[in-house]
Amino acid sequence: MEWLQKEFALDARRRGFHLVTREILGHLPELREFEVGLLHLFIQHTSASLTINENADPDVRGDLERYFNQYVPEDAPYFVHTLEGSDDMPAHIKSTILGNSLSIPIGRGALRLGVWQGIYLCEHRNDGGSRRLIATITGKKYSA
Amino acid sequence: MEWLQKEFALDARRRGFHLVTREILGHLPELREFEVGLLHLFIQHTSASLTINENADPDVRGDLERYFNQYVPEDAPYFVHTLEGSDDMPAHIKSTILGNSLSIPIGRGALRLGVWQGIYLCEHRNDGGSRRLIATITGKKYSA
Amino acid sequence: MEWLQKEFALDARRRGFHLVTREILGHLPELREFEVGLLHLFIQHTSASLTINENADPDVRGDLERYFNQYVPEDAPYFVHTLEGSDDMPAHIKSTILGNSLSIPIGRGALRLGVWQGIYLCEHRNDGGSRRLIATITGKKYSA
Repeated sequence: MEWLQKEFALDARRRGFHLVTREILGHLPELREFEVGLLHLFIQHTSASLTINENADPDVRGDLERYFNQYVPEDAPYFVHTLEGSDDMPAHIKSTILGNSLSIPIGRGALRLGVWQGIYLCEHRNDGGSRRLIATITGKKYSA
Repeated sequence: MEWLQKEFALDARRRGFHLVTREILGHLPELREFEVGLLHLFIQHTSASLTINENADPDVRGDLERYFNQYVPEDAPYFVHTLEGSDDMPAHIKSTILGNSLSIPIGRGALRLGVWQGIYLCEHRNDGGSRRLIATITGKKYSA
Repeated sequence: MEWLQKEFALDARRRGFHLVTREILGHLPELREFEVGLLHLFIQHTSASLTINENADPDVRGDLERYFNQYVPEDAPYFVHTLEGSDDMPAHIKSTILGNSLSIPIGRGALRLGVWQGIYLCEHRNDGGSRRLIATITGKKYSA
């Protein structure tokens, strides 16, 4: 039984849904040492989130951004928390709908994502900057 | 400390919310060997999801389906990803709202679900077919 | 490798979003013994939920409550599950959108929450009463 915990930042991205599987795996070369386990990813922010969705057609990411902008509108008349800008309270709502962590099974040294699945960073602020993640791996390593 | 990881398929179901606690437990007889631990369930698809909700009144499942069909409508004018059918992009949105994995505590050889809690498969496609799950259990077994 | 599992109840709260980080940590003094690990929190109910959001401005909690009350309305004409009151079916929907569990990384004897992150109890019923949680910690303890 082994534990690995790393903190790293994702590159800053514009508001929207972004495929970051490759960037995250680049920070976690140790994954290949695990025969079985779980990867936990945790974003230390309340205005960006993590989700898993289709890794192929970029239009899926665009449609997700357009959908959530319509259903979590800016400047709702009942918003009281407005001092940080029109995009701030919607960002808090989106992050709590989408979630701030993911758990993904590890098998034979790799993530067991489905063929069409990728990890998304959902950037809900107009200028969110780079985002800090805590990656925690627990599992059984291949015996040496 | 022990690890168990299994892949299995859930029976194909029509679009809607379905109680699958019994079917999932049928694939995991090893659960009873664990004194304490966690069960992680991961669906390897981006148009179906997993959630926990009431296990009693089937109307709750019907109301969930009706609610999400209204709030994640088909054929929104701003959808660009339309080639896979009217039910496809809403299915991606629903799956990212509801989530593609669950973690459930294990105690004394059983899931520690509340009295009224059951595991749901949320099938968002009209013809989604059978769905692949990865179940990962980590925990402490009863000593032999 | 160690496992800790505890069951406890959160104080009853009125309908709304409530910051409960301190109350939860008060039930888990053992956290400080873990050098690295994960805390899993699981609420054994289907009409209340757990999420992570801003720990500073209480208006964020008020805005979340107002947002979800608008987007998950009571007495929708298509609701069939109505016998338990107008607030019941919306509570089921909110709990499945927000989620009934959290996984939070542990490092150096503390939760690795971001500076602005806190744990919320989301009470979706008018009179939900006290809510039962299962806390499961797995990790590596400091060597004695």
